[in-house]
Amino acid sequence: MPKIVDHEVRRQEIIHATMRVIQRVGVEKTTVRTIAKETGYSAGVLAHYFKNKEEILAMTHLAAFRQVQIRTNEIIDSAVESEESIEVIRIALYEALPLDELRILEAHVDVSFWPQAILTPSLREIRTKSYLQRHEEWRQRFKKLREAGVIRCKETDVDLADEARMIIDSLSVQALLHPKHITPDKQKHIAENFLSRIQRDG
Amino acid sequence: MPKIVDHEVRRQEIIHATMRVIQRVGVEKTTVRTIAKETGYSAGVLAHYFKNKEEILAMTHLAAFRQVQIRTNEIIDSAVESEESIEVIRIALYEALPLDELRILEAHVDVSFWPQAILTPSLREIRTKSYLQRHEEWRQRFKKLREAGVIRCKETDVDLADEARMIIDSLSVQALLHPKHITPDKQKHIAENFLSRIQRDG
Repeated sequence: MPKIVDHEVRRQEIIHATMRVIQRVGVEKTTVRTIAKETGYSAGVLAHYFKNKEEILAMTHLAAFRQVQIRTNEIIDSAVESEESIEVIRIALYEALPLDELRILEAHVDVSFWPQAILTPSLREIRTKSYLQRHEEWRQRFKKLREAGVIRCKETDVDLADEARMIIDSLSVQALLHPKHITPDKQKHIAENFLSRIQRDG
Repeated sequence: MPKIVDHEVRRQEIIHATMRVIQRVGVEKTTVRTIAKETGYSAGVLAHYFKNKEEILAMTHLAAFRQVQIRTNEIIDSAVESEESIEVIRIALYEALPLDELRILEAHVDVSFWPQAILTPSLREIRTKSYLQRHEEWRQRFKKLREAGVIRCKETDVDLADEARMIIDSLSVQALLHPKHITPDKQKHIAENFLSRIQRDG
Protein backbone atom coordinates (compact mmCIF):
# COMPACT_ATOMS: atom_id res chain seq x y z
CA MET A 1 0.00 0.00 0.00
CA PRO A 2 2.41 2.68 -1.19
CA LYS A 3 -0.08 5.48 -0.63
CA ILE A 4 -0.30 4.85 3.13
CA VAL A 5 3.49 4.66 3.40
CA ASP A 6 3.79 7.98 1.56
CA HIS A 7 1.26 9.51 3.87
CA GLU A 8 3.24 8.45 6.94
CA VAL A 9 6.57 9.58 5.44
CA ARG A 10 5.07 12.97 4.64
CA ARG A 11 3.70 13.32 8.17
CA GLN A 12 7.14 12.54 9.63
CA GLU A 13 8.67 15.12 7.33
CA ILE A 14 6.19 17.73 8.54
CA ILE A 15 6.82 16.81 12.19
CA HIS A 16 10.57 17.22 11.82
CA ALA A 17 10.10 20.55 10.06
CA THR A 18 7.84 21.62 12.94
CA MET A 19 10.54 20.72 15.49
CA ARG A 20 13.05 22.91 13.66
CA VAL A 21 10.60 25.81 13.42
CA ILE A 22 9.71 25.56 17.14
CA GLN A 23 13.40 25.64 18.06
CA ARG A 24 13.96 28.68 15.84
CA VAL A 25 10.96 30.90 16.62
CA GLY A 26 9.08 29.29 19.52
CA VAL A 27 5.64 27.69 19.67
CA GLU A 28 3.78 31.00 19.60
CA LYS A 29 5.18 32.06 16.24
CA THR A 30 4.98 28.55 14.77
CA THR A 31 2.06 28.74 12.38
CA VAL A 32 0.78 26.38 9.69
CA ARG A 33 2.19 28.90 7.23
CA THR A 34 5.75 28.87 8.72
CA ILE A 35 5.72 25.07 8.85
CA ALA A 36 4.55 24.93 5.24
CA LYS A 37 7.41 27.23 4.25
CA GLU A 38 9.93 25.03 6.10
CA THR A 39 8.69 21.87 4.34
CA GLY A 40 8.36 23.49 0.91
CA TYR A 41 4.73 22.34 0.67
CA SER A 42 1.79 24.72 0.51
CA ALA A 43 -0.49 25.23 3.51
CA GLY A 44 -3.14 23.51 1.43
CA VAL A 45 -1.04 20.34 1.14
CA LEU A 46 -0.41 20.40 4.93
CA ALA A 47 -4.17 20.49 5.51
CA HIS A 48 -4.31 16.93 4.09
CA TYR A 49 -2.07 15.70 6.90
CA PHE A 50 -3.09 17.78 9.93
CA LYS A 51 -6.37 19.42 10.91
CA ASN A 52 -4.83 22.49 12.58
CA LYS A 53 -1.85 23.85 14.52
CA GLU A 54 -2.98 22.11 17.70
CA GLU A 55 -2.90 18.71 16.00
CA ILE A 56 0.58 19.38 14.58
CA LEU A 57 1.82 20.33 18.07
CA ALA A 58 0.30 17.22 19.61
CA MET A 59 1.82 14.97 16.92
CA THR A 60 5.20 16.67 17.28
CA HIS A 61 5.19 16.19 21.04
CA LEU A 62 4.31 12.52 20.66
CA ALA A 63 6.96 12.03 17.97
CA ALA A 64 9.69 13.57 20.18
CA PHE A 65 8.65 11.42 23.13
CA ARG A 66 8.54 8.28 20.99
CA GLN A 67 11.92 9.09 19.44
CA VAL A 68 13.55 9.14 22.91
CA GLN A 69 11.84 5.87 23.85
CA ILE A 70 12.89 4.01 20.70
CA ARG A 71 16.48 5.25 20.93
CA THR A 72 16.68 4.34 24.64
CA ASN A 73 15.38 0.81 24.08
CA GLU A 74 17.70 0.26 21.10
CA ILE A 75 20.77 1.33 23.07
CA ILE A 76 19.78 -0.75 26.09
CA ASP A 77 19.20 -3.79 23.85
CA SER A 78 22.54 -3.44 22.07
CA ALA A 79 24.78 -2.22 24.92
CA VAL A 80 23.54 -3.88 28.10
CA GLU A 81 24.21 -7.55 28.68
CA SER A 82 21.84 -7.98 31.60
CA GLU A 83 18.55 -6.27 32.28
CA GLU A 84 19.64 -6.20 35.90
CA SER A 85 22.50 -3.76 35.42
CA ILE A 86 22.54 -0.15 36.65
CA GLU A 87 23.54 0.66 33.05
CA VAL A 88 19.85 0.46 32.14
CA ILE A 89 19.13 3.48 34.36
CA ARG A 90 22.23 5.34 33.18
CA ILE A 91 21.34 4.93 29.50
CA ALA A 92 17.68 5.84 30.01
CA LEU A 93 18.68 8.99 31.91
CA TYR A 94 21.41 10.06 29.48
CA GLU A 95 19.17 9.55 26.45
CA ALA A 96 16.49 11.80 27.96
CA LEU A 97 18.83 14.61 29.06
CA PRO A 98 19.79 17.55 26.77
CA LEU A 99 23.41 16.44 26.32
CA ASP A 100 23.89 17.03 22.59
CA GLU A 101 22.26 18.89 19.72
CA LEU A 102 19.56 16.31 18.99
CA ARG A 103 18.59 15.92 22.64
CA ILE A 104 18.63 19.72 23.09
CA LEU A 105 16.15 19.95 20.21
CA GLU A 106 13.92 17.32 21.86
CA ALA A 107 14.08 19.20 25.18
CA HIS A 108 13.32 22.48 23.43
CA VAL A 109 10.24 21.01 21.77
CA ASP A 110 9.02 19.71 25.13
CA VAL A 111 9.68 22.92 27.14
CA SER A 112 8.06 25.06 24.42
CA PHE A 113 5.02 22.81 24.57
CA TRP A 114 4.48 23.25 28.35
CA PRO A 115 2.80 26.69 28.57
CA GLN A 116 0.60 25.81 25.58
CA ALA A 117 -0.36 22.48 27.18
CA ILE A 118 -1.14 24.12 30.55
CA LEU A 119 -3.73 26.34 28.86
CA THR A 120 -5.13 23.79 26.34
CA PRO A 121 -6.99 20.84 27.92
CA SER A 122 -6.62 18.52 24.90
CA LEU A 123 -2.83 19.09 24.77
CA ARG A 124 -2.52 18.81 28.54
CA GLU A 125 -4.25 15.44 28.43
CA ILE A 126 -1.77 14.17 25.83
CA ARG A 127 1.19 15.41 27.90
CA THR A 128 -0.19 13.81 31.08
CA LYS A 129 -0.62 10.50 29.27
CA SER A 130 3.02 10.66 28.10
CA TYR A 131 4.12 11.58 31.62
CA LEU A 132 2.32 8.65 33.24
CA GLN A 133 3.51 6.18 30.62
CA ARG A 134 7.12 7.30 31.02
CA HIS A 135 6.77 7.29 34.83
CA GLU A 136 5.57 3.68 34.71
CA GLU A 137 8.52 2.64 32.51
CA TRP A 138 10.87 4.15 35.07
CA ARG A 139 9.10 2.43 37.96
CA GLN A 140 9.43 -0.94 36.22
CA ARG A 141 13.16 -0.39 35.66
CA PHE A 142 13.73 0.45 39.33
CA LYS A 143 11.59 -2.48 40.46
CA LYS A 144 13.62 -4.95 38.40
CA LEU A 145 16.93 -3.59 39.72
CA ARG A 146 15.71 -3.59 43.29
CA GLU A 147 14.66 -7.23 42.99
CA ALA A 148 18.16 -7.95 41.66
CA GLY A 149 19.69 -6.24 44.71
CA VAL A 150 21.34 -3.50 42.63
CA ILE A 151 19.16 -0.72 44.07
CA ARG A 152 19.26 -0.65 47.84
CA CYS A 153 18.07 2.81 48.89
CA LYS A 154 15.21 3.51 51.24
CA GLU A 155 13.00 5.38 48.74
CA THR A 156 10.28 3.39 46.97
CA ASP A 157 10.28 2.64 43.23
CA VAL A 158 7.55 5.27 42.77
CA ASP A 159 9.75 7.83 44.61
CA LEU A 160 12.65 6.99 42.29
CA ALA A 161 10.46 7.27 39.18
CA ASP A 162 9.33 10.69 40.48
CA GLU A 163 13.00 11.65 40.91
CA ALA A 164 14.01 10.49 37.44
CA ARG A 165 11.21 12.56 35.89
CA MET A 166 12.20 15.54 38.08
CA ILE A 167 15.81 15.35 36.93
CA ILE A 168 14.78 15.14 33.27
CA ASP A 169 12.14 17.91 33.33
CA SER A 170 14.24 20.35 35.37
CA LEU A 171 17.49 19.84 33.47
CA SER A 172 15.61 20.08 30.16
CA VAL A 173 14.59 23.64 30.92
CA GLN A 174 17.68 24.66 32.92
CA ALA A 175 20.12 23.56 30.22
CA LEU A 176 18.23 25.68 27.68
CA LEU A 177 17.96 28.71 29.97
CA HIS A 178 21.43 28.51 31.54
CA PRO A 179 23.67 26.65 29.06
CA LYS A 180 26.87 28.05 30.62
CA HIS A 181 25.96 26.62 34.03
CA ILE A 182 23.95 23.47 33.28
CA THR A 183 26.61 22.06 30.96
CA PRO A 184 26.69 18.42 29.77
CA ASP A 185 29.33 17.75 32.47
CA LYS A 186 27.11 19.22 35.16
CA GLN A 187 24.15 17.14 33.94
CA LYS A 188 26.26 13.98 34.00
CA HIS A 189 27.50 14.81 37.50
CA ILE A 190 23.88 15.14 38.69
CA ALA A 191 22.91 11.86 36.98
CA GLU A 192 25.94 10.05 38.48
CA ASN A 193 25.15 11.36 41.98
CA PHE A 194 21.67 9.91 41.61
CA LEU A 195 23.00 6.57 40.30
CA SER A 196 25.47 6.23 43.20
CA ARG A 197 22.94 7.22 45.81
CA ILE A 198 20.26 4.71 44.85
CA GLN A 199 22.79 1.87 45.01
CA ARG A 200 23.76 2.72 48.59
CA ASP A 201 22.02 1.21 51.62
CA GLY A 202 19.41 3.12 53.64
CA MET B 1 8.15 62.55 47.12
CA PRO B 2 4.60 61.38 46.43
CA LYS B 3 5.13 61.28 42.68
CA ILE B 4 7.83 58.61 42.90
CA VAL B 5 5.70 56.58 45.31
CA ASP B 6 2.74 56.79 42.93
CA HIS B 7 4.96 55.68 40.08
CA GLU B 8 6.08 52.61 42.00
CA VAL B 9 2.54 51.78 43.15
CA ARG B 10 1.30 52.05 39.58
CA ARG B 11 4.10 49.77 38.33
CA GLN B 12 3.19 47.16 40.96
CA GLU B 13 -0.43 47.38 39.91
CA ILE B 14 0.54 46.77 36.29
CA ILE B 15 2.80 43.86 37.25
CA HIS B 16 0.01 42.14 39.19
CA ALA B 17 -2.41 42.68 36.32
CA THR B 18 0.20 41.14 34.00
CA MET B 19 0.48 38.05 36.23
CA ARG B 20 -3.28 37.53 36.06
CA VAL B 21 -3.34 37.98 32.27
CA ILE B 22 -0.44 35.53 31.80
CA GLN B 23 -2.24 32.93 33.90
CA ARG B 24 -5.43 33.40 31.92
CA VAL B 25 -4.22 33.55 28.31
CA GLY B 26 -0.49 32.70 28.34
CA VAL B 27 2.55 34.83 27.55
CA GLU B 28 2.02 34.71 23.79
CA LYS B 29 -1.40 36.33 23.94
CA THR B 30 -0.41 38.79 26.67
CA THR B 31 -0.08 42.12 24.86
CA VAL B 32 0.30 45.68 26.09
CA ARG B 33 -3.34 46.09 25.03
CA THR B 34 -4.65 43.14 27.13
CA ILE B 35 -2.64 44.32 30.15
CA ALA B 36 -4.00 47.84 29.71
CA LYS B 37 -7.54 46.44 29.62
CA GLU B 38 -6.92 44.44 32.82
CA THR B 39 -5.62 47.53 34.68
CA GLY B 40 -8.26 49.90 33.31
CA TYR B 41 -5.55 52.26 32.05
CA SER B 42 -4.99 53.06 28.40
CA ALA B 43 -2.02 51.62 26.49
CA GLY B 44 -0.76 55.20 26.36
CA VAL B 45 -0.65 55.42 30.17
CA LEU B 46 1.19 52.07 30.35
CA ALA B 47 3.83 53.45 28.01
CA HIS B 48 4.85 55.84 30.81
CA TYR B 49 5.74 52.88 33.00
CA PHE B 50 7.16 50.29 30.63
CA LYS B 51 8.97 50.56 27.34
CA ASN B 52 7.48 47.44 25.75
CA LYS B 53 6.10 43.96 26.36
CA GLU B 54 9.58 42.57 26.94
CA GLU B 55 10.20 45.01 29.77
CA ILE B 56 6.84 44.18 31.38
CA LEU B 57 7.67 40.46 31.21
CA ALA B 58 11.11 41.03 32.74
CA MET B 59 9.66 43.15 35.57
CA THR B 60 6.91 40.60 36.20
CA HIS B 61 9.41 37.77 36.41
CA LEU B 62 11.57 39.73 38.86
CA ALA B 63 8.53 40.72 40.94
CA ALA B 64 7.37 37.10 41.24
CA PHE B 65 10.88 35.96 42.22
CA ARG B 66 11.22 38.77 44.76
CA GLN B 67 7.77 38.04 46.20
CA VAL B 68 8.81 34.44 46.97
CA GLN B 69 12.07 35.62 48.53
CA ILE B 70 10.45 38.23 50.79
CA ARG B 71 7.73 35.81 51.94
CA THR B 72 10.28 33.07 52.62
CA ASN B 73 12.52 35.33 54.70
CA GLU B 74 9.56 36.73 56.66
CA ILE B 75 8.28 33.27 57.55
CA ILE B 76 11.75 32.04 58.48
CA ASP B 77 12.28 35.12 60.67
CA SER B 78 8.96 34.75 62.45
CA ALA B 79 8.65 30.96 62.69
CA VAL B 80 12.16 29.59 63.14
CA GLU B 81 13.95 30.01 66.45
CA SER B 82 17.40 29.00 65.27
CA GLU B 83 19.00 29.56 61.90
CA GLU B 84 20.46 26.09 62.34
CA SER B 85 17.16 24.22 62.12
CA ILE B 86 16.07 22.03 59.19
CA GLU B 87 12.87 24.12 59.31
CA VAL B 88 14.74 26.77 57.29
CA ILE B 89 15.01 24.37 54.36
CA ARG B 90 11.44 23.12 54.78
CA ILE B 91 9.99 26.66 54.73
CA ALA B 92 12.13 27.79 51.78
CA LEU B 93 11.06 24.71 49.80
CA TYR B 94 7.38 24.93 50.67
CA GLU B 95 7.21 28.65 49.87
CA ALA B 96 8.67 28.03 46.40
CA LEU B 97 6.46 25.05 45.51
CA PRO B 98 3.02 25.43 43.83
CA LEU B 99 1.05 24.34 46.91
CA ASP B 100 -1.78 26.89 46.89
CA GLU B 101 -3.43 29.38 44.54
CA LEU B 102 -0.87 32.18 45.02
CA ARG B 103 2.11 29.87 44.59
CA ILE B 104 0.46 28.22 41.55
CA LEU B 105 0.16 31.70 40.00
CA GLU B 106 3.86 32.37 40.70
CA ALA B 107 4.81 29.02 39.16
CA HIS B 108 2.59 29.70 36.16
CA VAL B 109 4.28 33.08 35.54
CA ASP B 110 7.70 31.41 35.73
CA VAL B 111 6.88 28.43 33.48
CA SER B 112 5.19 30.70 30.90
CA PHE B 113 8.32 32.83 30.89
CA TRP B 114 10.69 29.94 30.07
CA PRO B 115 10.16 29.47 26.29
CA GLN B 116 10.18 33.25 25.81
CA ALA B 117 13.43 33.55 27.80
CA ILE B 118 15.10 30.70 25.90
CA LEU B 119 14.59 32.63 22.64
CA THR B 120 15.24 36.18 23.94
CA PRO B 121 18.83 36.82 25.12
CA SER B 122 17.94 39.82 27.34
CA LEU B 123 15.21 37.84 29.15
CA ARG B 124 17.41 34.77 29.40
CA GLU B 125 20.12 36.83 31.07
CA ILE B 126 17.64 38.08 33.67
CA ARG B 127 16.40 34.54 34.37
CA THR B 128 19.97 33.23 34.68
CA LYS B 129 20.81 35.99 37.16
CA SER B 130 17.75 35.05 39.26
CA TYR B 131 18.72 31.39 39.04
CA LEU B 132 22.28 31.97 40.21
CA GLN B 133 21.20 34.28 43.03
CA ARG B 134 18.63 31.78 44.25
CA HIS B 135 21.13 28.92 43.89
CA GLU B 136 23.61 30.80 46.07
CA GLU B 137 20.97 31.43 48.77
CA TRP B 138 20.28 27.70 48.85
CA ARG B 139 23.98 26.86 49.05
CA GLN B 140 24.40 29.20 52.02
CA ARG B 141 21.47 27.60 53.83
CA PHE B 142 22.88 24.10 53.32
CA LYS B 143 26.37 25.23 54.35
CA LYS B 144 25.09 26.68 57.64
CA LEU B 145 23.14 23.53 58.46
CA ARG B 146 26.04 21.28 57.58
CA GLU B 147 28.33 23.23 59.88
CA ALA B 148 25.71 22.80 62.60
CA GLY B 149 25.72 19.03 62.01
CA VAL B 150 22.08 18.95 60.88
CA ILE B 151 22.92 17.97 57.32
CA ARG B 152 25.08 14.88 57.16
CA CYS B 153 24.70 13.48 53.64
CA LYS B 154 27.55 12.80 51.27
CA GLU B 155 26.51 15.29 48.55
CA THR B 156 28.15 18.74 48.59
CA ASP B 157 26.28 21.97 49.35
CA VAL B 158 26.40 22.83 45.63
CA ASP B 159 24.86 19.40 44.84
CA LEU B 160 22.06 20.10 47.34
CA ALA B 161 21.44 23.59 45.94
CA ASP B 162 21.20 21.97 42.47
CA GLU B 163 18.69 19.48 43.88
CA ALA B 164 16.56 22.15 45.56
CA ARG B 165 16.36 24.09 42.29
CA MET B 166 15.55 20.86 40.41
CA ILE B 167 12.70 20.02 42.79
CA ILE B 168 11.25 23.54 42.48
CA ASP B 169 11.56 23.89 38.69
CA SER B 170 10.26 20.40 37.92
CA LEU B 171 7.33 20.46 40.34
CA SER B 172 6.41 23.97 39.16
CA VAL B 173 5.72 22.68 35.68
CA GLN B 174 4.49 19.20 36.63
CA ALA B 175 1.87 20.52 39.08
CA LEU B 176 0.48 22.79 36.36
CA LEU B 177 0.51 20.08 33.68
CA HIS B 178 -0.62 17.16 35.85
CA PRO B 179 -2.58 18.63 38.80
CA LYS B 180 -4.34 15.32 39.51
CA HIS B 181 -1.01 13.52 39.96
CA ILE B 182 1.37 16.17 41.32
CA THR B 183 -0.99 17.17 44.13
CA PRO B 184 0.06 19.28 47.14
CA ASP B 185 0.36 16.03 49.15
CA LYS B 186 2.63 14.50 46.51
CA GLN B 187 4.79 17.65 46.46
CA LYS B 188 5.09 17.58 50.26
CA HIS B 189 5.99 13.89 50.18
CA ILE B 190 8.80 14.65 47.70
CA ALA B 191 10.02 17.58 49.82
CA GLU B 192 9.94 15.48 53.01
CA ASN B 193 11.87 12.63 51.34
CA PHE B 194 14.56 15.15 50.43
CA LEU B 195 14.62 16.64 53.95
CA SER B 196 14.98 13.19 55.57
CA ARG B 197 17.63 12.05 53.18
CA ILE B 198 19.98 15.00 53.59
CA GLN B 199 19.92 14.55 57.38
CA ARG B 200 21.02 10.90 57.12
CA ASP B 201 24.67 9.86 57.14
CA GLY B 202 26.53 8.89 53.98
